Amino acid sequence: MKKLVAEFIGTAWLVLGGCGSAVFAAAFPDLGIGFMGVALAFGLTVVTMAYAIGHISGCHLNPAVSVGLWVGGRFNKKEVLPYIIAQVLGGILGAAIIYLILSGKEGFDIGGFAANGYGEHSPGGYDFKAALVTEIVMTFMFLIIILGTTHSKAPKYLAGLAIGLGLTLIHLISIPITNTSVNPARSTSQALFVGDWALSQLWLFWVAPIIGAILAGLVYKFISPETPTKK
Amino acid sequence: MKKLVAEFIGTAWLVLGGCGSAVFAAAFPDLGIGFMGVALAFGLTVVTMAYAIGHISGCHLNPAVSVGLWVGGRFNKKEVLPYIIAQVLGGILGAAIIYLILSGKEGFDIGGFAANGYGEHSPGGYDFKAALVTEIVMTFMFLIIILGTTHSKAPKYLAGLAIGLGLTLIHLISIPITNTSVNPARSTSQALFVGDWALSQLWLFWVAPIIGAILAGLVYKFISPETPTKK
Amino acid sequence: MKKLVAEFIGTAWLVLGGCGSAVFAAAFPDLGIGFMGVALAFGLTVVTMAYAIGHISGCHLNPAVSVGLWVGGRFNKKEVLPYIIAQVLGGILGAAIIYLILSGKEGFDIGGFAANGYGEHSPGGYDFKAALVTEIVMTFMFLIIILGTTHSKAPKYLAGLAIGLGLTLIHLISIPITNTSVNPARSTSQALFVGDWALSQLWLFWVAPIIGAILAGLVYKFISPETPTKK
Amino acid sequence: MKKLVAEFIGTAWLVLGGCGSAVFAAAFPDLGIGFMGVALAFGLTVVTMAYAIGHISGCHLNPAVSVGLWVGGRFNKKEVLPYIIAQVLGGILGAAIIYLILSGKEGFDIGGFAANGYGEHSPGGYDFKAALVTEIVMTFMFLIIILGTTHSKAPKYLAGLAIGLGLTLIHLISIPITNTSVNPARSTSQALFVGDWALSQLWLFWVAPIIGAILAGLVYKFISPETPTKK
Repeated sequence: MKKLVAEFIGTAWLVLGGCGSAVFAAAFPDLGIGFMGVALAFGLTVVTMAYAIGHISGCHLNPAVSVGLWVGGRFNKKEVLPYIIAQVLGGILGAAIIYLILSGKEGFDIGGFAANGYGEHSPGGYDFKAALVTEIVMTFMFLIIILGTTHSKAPKYLAGLAIGLGLTLIHLISIPITNTSVNPARSTSQALFVGDWALSQLWLFWVAPIIGAILAGLVYKFISPETPTKK
Repeated sequence: MKKLVAEFIGTAWLVLGGCGSAVFAAAFPDLGIGFMGVALAFGLTVVTMAYAIGHISGCHLNPAVSVGLWVGGRFNKKEVLPYIIAQVLGGILGAAIIYLILSGKEGFDIGGFAANGYGEHSPGGYDFKAALVTEIVMTFMFLIIILGTTHSKAPKYLAGLAIGLGLTLIHLISIPITNTSVNPARSTSQALFVGDWALSQLWLFWVAPIIGAILAGLVYKFISPETPTKK
Repeated sequence: MKKLVAEFIGTAWLVLGGCGSAVFAAAFPDLGIGFMGVALAFGLTVVTMAYAIGHISGCHLNPAVSVGLWVGGRFNKKEVLPYIIAQVLGGILGAAIIYLILSGKEGFDIGGFAANGYGEHSPGGYDFKAALVTEIVMTFMFLIIILGTTHSKAPKYLAGLAIGLGLTLIHLISIPITNTSVNPARSTSQALFVGDWALSQLWLFWVAPIIGAILAGLVYKFISPETPTKK
Repeated sequence: MKKLVAEFIGTAWLVLGGCGSAVFAAAFPDLGIGFMGVALAFGLTVVTMAYAIGHISGCHLNPAVSVGLWVGGRFNKKEVLPYIIAQVLGGILGAAIIYLILSGKEGFDIGGFAANGYGEHSPGGYDFKAALVTEIVMTFMFLIIILGTTHSKAPKYLAGLAIGLGLTLIHLISIPITNTSVNPARSTSQALFVGDWALSQLWLFWVAPIIGAILAGLVYKFISPETPTKK
């Protein structure tokens, strides 16, 4: 139960920090933080939670991460579903807090709300194929980073930093394509508030990240096998 | 006494670094550092002091942090008030140095002086309710990060980095709402120099951060209790 | 073989992350990440891979690094050529993924594709001599950083972070001169897709980095010799 | 002798990285790195060298640092002068490389060359008094960070990171005031190439940093004394 509370709070923080900085601060006139600041914010939600709750739940904060760790032999099958539920609920809390704050702004407009999309809803006008490839490859590499840095031969204390900065890097590359998901919980929470197109494109941001995560779990076992341990 | 001198110097540095970078460099024509640079500056004041004076005073630099650590069972009740006094005095020194330097600029004007505010004094025009929610939630998460990363099961050497980067993250999200406080000492020092509206809104930046900190102290004890130790 | 797979994946990530962020996100209207974001992205590819695959292959990801480590007495001569081949192939995979995604953008145009160049193909209009000096000196310092931080007397767990941030620093300085190579594999992959001028200038981005790396290997042995060990 | 070679190379890198990024990349049209990127570059020269040559020379790279460590009881009096000479010569090498590269640019103009100044040569038009206060206070805090993070009770492996990021922070605050010195070697190298006003204002960037460093050495001994050890 404590693990699930930790995943719930952590995923709320990921959404509030990453999507919140995008909604409130990215396009602020003249002084805004841009894609760079949003990329940093997403990464730092993971860095901060990795060291704050990593010792409680392992700090997944992402259904694709839980699935990839399970496939890679590092996470217990029975815990996958409860973790995913806690993550999705946490994401919704994060999005609700963003909405609550945003509604206090003069001339409030929900806008894109940092939801993920492709085609006409891609920030840079990238099509379905580009979005599919991007989400699979980015999640694949995210899980390679996670599986590698938490491997028993890697310097364990730096895993949280490397994983968080890896998420920053993924956003630096791919915000223009899909607004970057690699995390179905984060996509779901934003789509629920935007509705409409965001809900109808949401399936891609479950399917592609999970495909990427499964592939990474299989590949990493080949390049660096180890006796199964829980992350 | 050495602890109080350390808190005094450290909080002066937090205000000089965070508010100073905002006042001098954020809006510099073309080359300015924007909200992103200010967010980084606030975080780095904590990173640098955590490793420089952490072994002396614990490096709180913030009345809400001292209160939250006390509620969370990590800080001695008797030390709370002296720490808060040293922090407020340190903040005032930091603000005085900013003022002294700024007065040497051609066409000097104190402007907003990085003070915190809501309503018409919110950078992005957010109302009282948004400011209240933001300051409570951000301070809550700041204390969750602090309590978690300094927990006996967390990798202790990285706590200072994670806490500082956590403050950066909090600023990336919330500068547009309230100019980000989460720290009554930092709010007080700037309000004293601005006077007027900043003083009349100051109470919120004592009440909301302390509420958030108390809640975090209570919640964290539930999700990850430990035998009380001093931070 | 596992080492070569790791170098292949890692170099693909270096190119996809560094050149990909440049192609997709650097010049995005208003919110783009600029040279700063690209510099950070290149560095973070190395930080993430250092901790994820460092324990497998040593995480060179760069023919000049493999050569410099060999000259510095830290890498086995017999492994140099296989590593270089894996790195070049990995770079090509990274570039191919960038091309695939980019081709899904409305009004797709390959543009400079983050290729390296001098003279009229230097971002800031720097001539051949400036490019030659820059690539030699930057690769020299990159190898000094690598040889120094992986020395037996240096704190080993932080090497990956320092090396990656060193690559960020190198890009902060030299993107305007040559678009920054210091890595023949990264230059080759981009030149193959651009063809034409990029292929005809490519030789410089093999010769200069390798000269810089050899010099660093020789100099570092003088200032801090040690019993040869494999990185 | 190896120590002096290390200080020579390290200070060349500090100037090439910090001032070079300012000269080449800060004001690049649209994609430039601004004060933020320059601040990061200065800091990363120290981070990279701290881990690469820290075990050889202690990585001072700065006459004020050598003086402050000596006053603080952490550095041998007899080594101060040789270190300072190596640092100044290294700085000149760094500036010469910048000049050599810059001279290969179409329409080459030395411009400000990242030299330090006050009054009409302050980036933001700050007067002599503001410059004096800024350089004393910033160097004071730089030495407090250095003395604190290298104290025997601080987590030693993170000192290099905290010190480098401290230099980044100092630049985020004070580039608008004096272009940030806190380092007489860095000021001297740039002034020699600019000549004229830069040479006539140079004395301030020796006197103020050294005053700040001496004060920090004295204060730190009070708040956290320890048995003298060499850094």
